[in-house]
Amino acid sequence: MSEDHLLRGLRSRLGPSSLLGDDAAILSLPAEAAVTVDSQISGVHFPPGLDPALVARRLLAVNLSDLAAMGAEPGHAFLALSAPPAFDRERFFDAFVEACREWNVTLAGGDLARCDQVVATLTLIGTKPAGGRWLRRSDAQPGHDLWLGGTVGESAAGRMLIARGADAEEPAVRRHLMPVPQLALGRWLGRQSEGAAMDVSDGVAIDLHRLCRESGTGAVIDAEALPFADGFLDLCNTLAADPYELALAGGEDYVLLFTLPPGAQPPGCHRIGTILGETKIEWIREGRRRALPAAGWDHLKT
Amino acid sequence: MSEDHLLRGLRSRLGPSSLLGDDAAILSLPAEAAVTVDSQISGVHFPPGLDPALVARRLLAVNLSDLAAMGAEPGHAFLALSAPPAFDRERFFDAFVEACREWNVTLAGGDLARCDQVVATLTLIGTKPAGGRWLRRSDAQPGHDLWLGGTVGESAAGRMLIARGADAEEPAVRRHLMPVPQLALGRWLGRQSEGAAMDVSDGVAIDLHRLCRESGTGAVIDAEALPFADGFLDLCNTLAADPYELALAGGEDYVLLFTLPPGAQPPGCHRIGTILGETKIEWIREGRRRALPAAGWDHLKT
Repeated sequence: MSEDHLLRGLRSRLGPSSLLGDDAAILSLPAEAAVTVDSQISGVHFPPGLDPALVARRLLAVNLSDLAAMGAEPGHAFLALSAPPAFDRERFFDAFVEACREWNVTLAGGDLARCDQVVATLTLIGTKPAGGRWLRRSDAQPGHDLWLGGTVGESAAGRMLIARGADAEEPAVRRHLMPVPQLALGRWLGRQSEGAAMDVSDGVAIDLHRLCRESGTGAVIDAEALPFADGFLDLCNTLAADPYELALAGGEDYVLLFTLPPGAQPPGCHRIGTILGETKIEWIREGRRRALPAAGWDHLKT
Repeated sequence: MSEDHLLRGLRSRLGPSSLLGDDAAILSLPAEAAVTVDSQISGVHFPPGLDPALVARRLLAVNLSDLAAMGAEPGHAFLALSAPPAFDRERFFDAFVEACREWNVTLAGGDLARCDQVVATLTLIGTKPAGGRWLRRSDAQPGHDLWLGGTVGESAAGRMLIARGADAEEPAVRRHLMPVPQLALGRWLGRQSEGAAMDVSDGVAIDLHRLCRESGTGAVIDAEALPFADGFLDLCNTLAADPYELALAGGEDYVLLFTLPPGAQPPGCHRIGTILGETKIEWIREGRRRALPAAGWDHLKT
């Protein structure tokens, strides 16, 4: 199937407002926009042979998670899809277009090519909600509480299950393959007057290092306060995995990691620590306080 | 080398205005922007093993060519680079940052991943020059002259030479590997009150079909008017290639294909035909008028 044929099919699905006809899409934009780009690659971010519909939804979700971390509303998307001829592009596009509708995203342009691996890259443009502010990594302040928007570690456990041949019906596998971007939480945070935010993509530890580096602060995490999904500890037992290693260094959780002044009550979130004035980053487990290394996805892979 | 290390290196090269610190880049934008995305893939768009500096420059050039085709000024760039560990990312980035400076592009964000093939995807945001208009494919009108901004066919000949082991010093190989985006011509066209434009990426024939489809017109090309580079006919002889096939179906010329009302004199350009009211697309060679099929890159590859 040629690129022209696919694009014609996409345009007919997207309707008369489709922006896919020119060398570039012309967008009407607000004065400021948030722009992010992220790829999903077979054998790296998802198992080869994964249902193209899941690849499409995951691609959109991880990019939306970046917009959530900025307090942004989804806007326009630009898709570059490189894949072998056997990859079911129609199924990918059907799922992608449906997911765009669900999340209020307009697919405005793209590029199709052949490649031995599936490499899907999405650029997403977001806007600032009325009355909101952009969330930055650099706005953490000593004395702020440190929060997580949801449970961590389960996605890494799901990745281990997939490597052992588990199917997509396992809750941890679903959590890994189908992250849910925390856009509502990002909007809520954007209405608060203070605080930093980012999303946990590579792992709480390395991502916390990044947040603290941008803010010029340190932090301390209470291991007992880390939020775990139901059944996560049993699953770690089965996998012979350290739940704290998965929670802190597993990554791909796609929940928000953020700071707020003491006393704030973000809905459905978990306070896991405190921002420090000194630039050290530590965690406390069973009463012992130690350095938290910036280990993440790369670390787990070796 | 880790993504964090590379990003820190990039930020230090880009200076304090760097936008690489957050989950998304915050851009100040005009009310309208042109956005394009294009990939360069090893073994598809360039030979495996090509100097990473050339890959970087080609990636930027083909995307800038899309902005030229819209009459846009270059603005911000977002880079997704997926490559094997052996790929020299430092060399790629050095060349990319230098090329961005030359063309007035601000690298504002990106994503790095590993992949067996080199897959480099760039999203470019352009703005409309003061006093200009956006160039669209849909603005061709019957009676307009059809123009090319430069010679065609030489890039395809260069691709054939590369397949035969030629080095990068051959002019046709240089033309293929290092296209020059026609941004100045795009700006000039944007100051004219009428006319359609696009860039020739897949070949004059298929791209003309696209332009005519968007405009609801047809066209006729005079083969004798097609502009060839010095030495192109001799080179075709050596390659046993039909110069008209390379010129019409070779692709990757990255010159502008555009229309203007009769009497216009675009600087340094070549009038090759006329836009028709009927939707047929034809070419005249040695006095014989025949249909011009929408054959392009795909066609040549089989």
